[in-house]
Amino acid sequence: MKKTATRLADGRELFYYDSRDDAVRDAVDHRPLPPSQTAGEIRRDPLLGDSVVVASHRQSRTYHPPPDQCPLCPSRRGRLTEIPAADYEVVVFENRFPSLVGATGRCEVVCFTDDHDASFADLGEDRAALVLAAWTDRTAELAALPGTAQIFCFENRGEEIGVTLGHPHGQIYAYSFVTPRTERMLASVAAHRTAAHRAAPGGGGPNLFDDVVAREDADGRRIVLAADHWVAFVPYAAHWPYEVHLYPRRRVPDLLALDEAARAEFPRVYLDLLRRFDRVFGAGEPPTPYVAAWHQAPLHHPHRSEFALHLELFTIRRTPGKLKFLAGSESGMSVFINDVPPEAAAERLREVASE
Amino acid sequence: MKKTATRLADGRELFYYDSRDDAVRDAVDHRPLPPSQTAGEIRRDPLLGDSVVVASHRQSRTYHPPPDQCPLCPSRRGRLTEIPAADYEVVVFENRFPSLVGATGRCEVVCFTDDHDASFADLGEDRAALVLAAWTDRTAELAALPGTAQIFCFENRGEEIGVTLGHPHGQIYAYSFVTPRTERMLASVAAHRTAAHRAAPGGGGPNLFDDVVAREDADGRRIVLAADHWVAFVPYAAHWPYEVHLYPRRRVPDLLALDEAARAEFPRVYLDLLRRFDRVFGAGEPPTPYVAAWHQAPLHHPHRSEFALHLELFTIRRTPGKLKFLAGSESGMSVFINDVPPEAAAERLREVASE
Repeated sequence: MKKTATRLADGRELFYYDSRDDAVRDAVDHRPLPPSQTAGEIRRDPLLGDSVVVASHRQSRTYHPPPDQCPLCPSRRGRLTEIPAADYEVVVFENRFPSLVGATGRCEVVCFTDDHDASFADLGEDRAALVLAAWTDRTAELAALPGTAQIFCFENRGEEIGVTLGHPHGQIYAYSFVTPRTERMLASVAAHRTAAHRAAPGGGGPNLFDDVVAREDADGRRIVLAADHWVAFVPYAAHWPYEVHLYPRRRVPDLLALDEAARAEFPRVYLDLLRRFDRVFGAGEPPTPYVAAWHQAPLHHPHRSEFALHLELFTIRRTPGKLKFLAGSESGMSVFINDVPPEAAAERLREVASE
Repeated sequence: MKKTATRLADGRELFYYDSRDDAVRDAVDHRPLPPSQTAGEIRRDPLLGDSVVVASHRQSRTYHPPPDQCPLCPSRRGRLTEIPAADYEVVVFENRFPSLVGATGRCEVVCFTDDHDASFADLGEDRAALVLAAWTDRTAELAALPGTAQIFCFENRGEEIGVTLGHPHGQIYAYSFVTPRTERMLASVAAHRTAAHRAAPGGGGPNLFDDVVAREDADGRRIVLAADHWVAFVPYAAHWPYEVHLYPRRRVPDLLALDEAARAEFPRVYLDLLRRFDRVFGAGEPPTPYVAAWHQAPLHHPHRSEFALHLELFTIRRTPGKLKFLAGSESGMSVFINDVPPEAAAERLREVASE
């Protein structure tokens, strides 16, 4: 794998990730690009205790451009895009319309392929491995930036979930604070350890993540895919109609700590999961909208070694043509209502496995 | 106000609320209605610590019926609906497709008017007062049911937010547990009290809700509407593009404890707010989708008297034709990104006040 770093016309960083070590990436961004105007601010909600990113100047960001004006396609004569090269494999660059910027964090865009009409599920295993390498490399580099507290690699796919650029891409956020969801998980892990110590003071410390995965493995009803180094299941209390959590069998805190065996098996496992997601609602349905979210340990948390790297993949579609909306109960009271029993979701995701 | 209780053909309760004390409500539901099949289960997420309602058998619920098959319109010869009467003012009945049922709770539907094409903002003050009386009465009755922990009156409005019946209506949920959002607020209130006691051991206990409202009142930049008995503001860390919190000036834990002066002023204030919401995006825009959520103290919480009844009103529209979606950052990490600064939202909501 070869990585080439460059800068765009307005000073933003861009990185090419190539499978060939002799790739040459010397294209220059010739656009007359004024500096980005985005400003961000983080505000704490005194009643809920969470942090909200107030990002002004983003309302003008690119919104559903026609395919021939896609800013994520390679540049060609007469049509310059965010990627100066005439082709690419995987490319990562700083978002021109970031919600987090400077002291509040950083937002990057990850293009998975230069093929505008593809999707992650269409990639080959080699390309998926290259994306994993890019996620891992960016996690390492963003961790080294002062002020970074947590790194979040994710993909939003589908217009139904608000994606405004059809070109296959994901994002990486470097937050300057530990996110509420991660705080909550770490609090549960700590409470579980404390309770077990109280019950058996001399015992080794149990880990909640390990226990959850072991319980799902033993139960089996919600297992979607059991590979040598990864296991995927619909969680017992799934929040979304179809939701899968993918864990490496050996617990590690983040992508950097994944061993070679898990890293080598990931492309096959992940592509299999994504392809099943596209088949869940039957032939003839448009591609399944989804969020794929990597959960990594925050960088400087005292109990970061107890966190378990995992990927959460879910769709907001609940049945062909119908979406799950977050309305009164979910948005007002944080109580999710799920109309698809997790056992039924897992069964369906097993049914649509490729032979 | 006159309340008349009756039952639908499958045994569900229905209540008419009428402004006239001589209203006669003796219509009988003649539909051949089999018992509802819905079953619900509450599952706790071990990592997030929240409760998810798994509600199967709801996928078949009524979904965008044509207007002439609206189940919330009054019944007429040859077309029997959920409301047996030929007309009504306000009516409340048990949902035929509840997410909470039996030991897990109860779901009710509140119809605000028998006019299919109206919306809450179109109602007169007398009707809004009757709805407030119905919310209050249902809160009292549901509180008396065994197992109820918290009562939630809310309205989802607009297809963009997932509403599948266009007839103006809201809902009431009686949860059998305290919701995560309310737990979080009460934890913040307790932490605030404890911190203040530590700083000044002899002092009276401060209340976080009181302090938040006083701070907004003193600051003024985010105030939307200041009436004699109510104050409405965009919160400092608003999560949604346009979000308003409406508090009675005298703190009370729930709707039952509202005094007569606040009760009398509410219809004018609330209708004013809803009408401003419809004007925010300019003339010619379709009605603003919104969630209006009453936050009430849980019933049996030791610190329930410290909770402050308030209404949270927000829209998912961020600009004409564009919605705010909850994707990677919000759904994956619980970090909201808000592109409309709260001060700008408040200014706009003041601009669109009626003269």
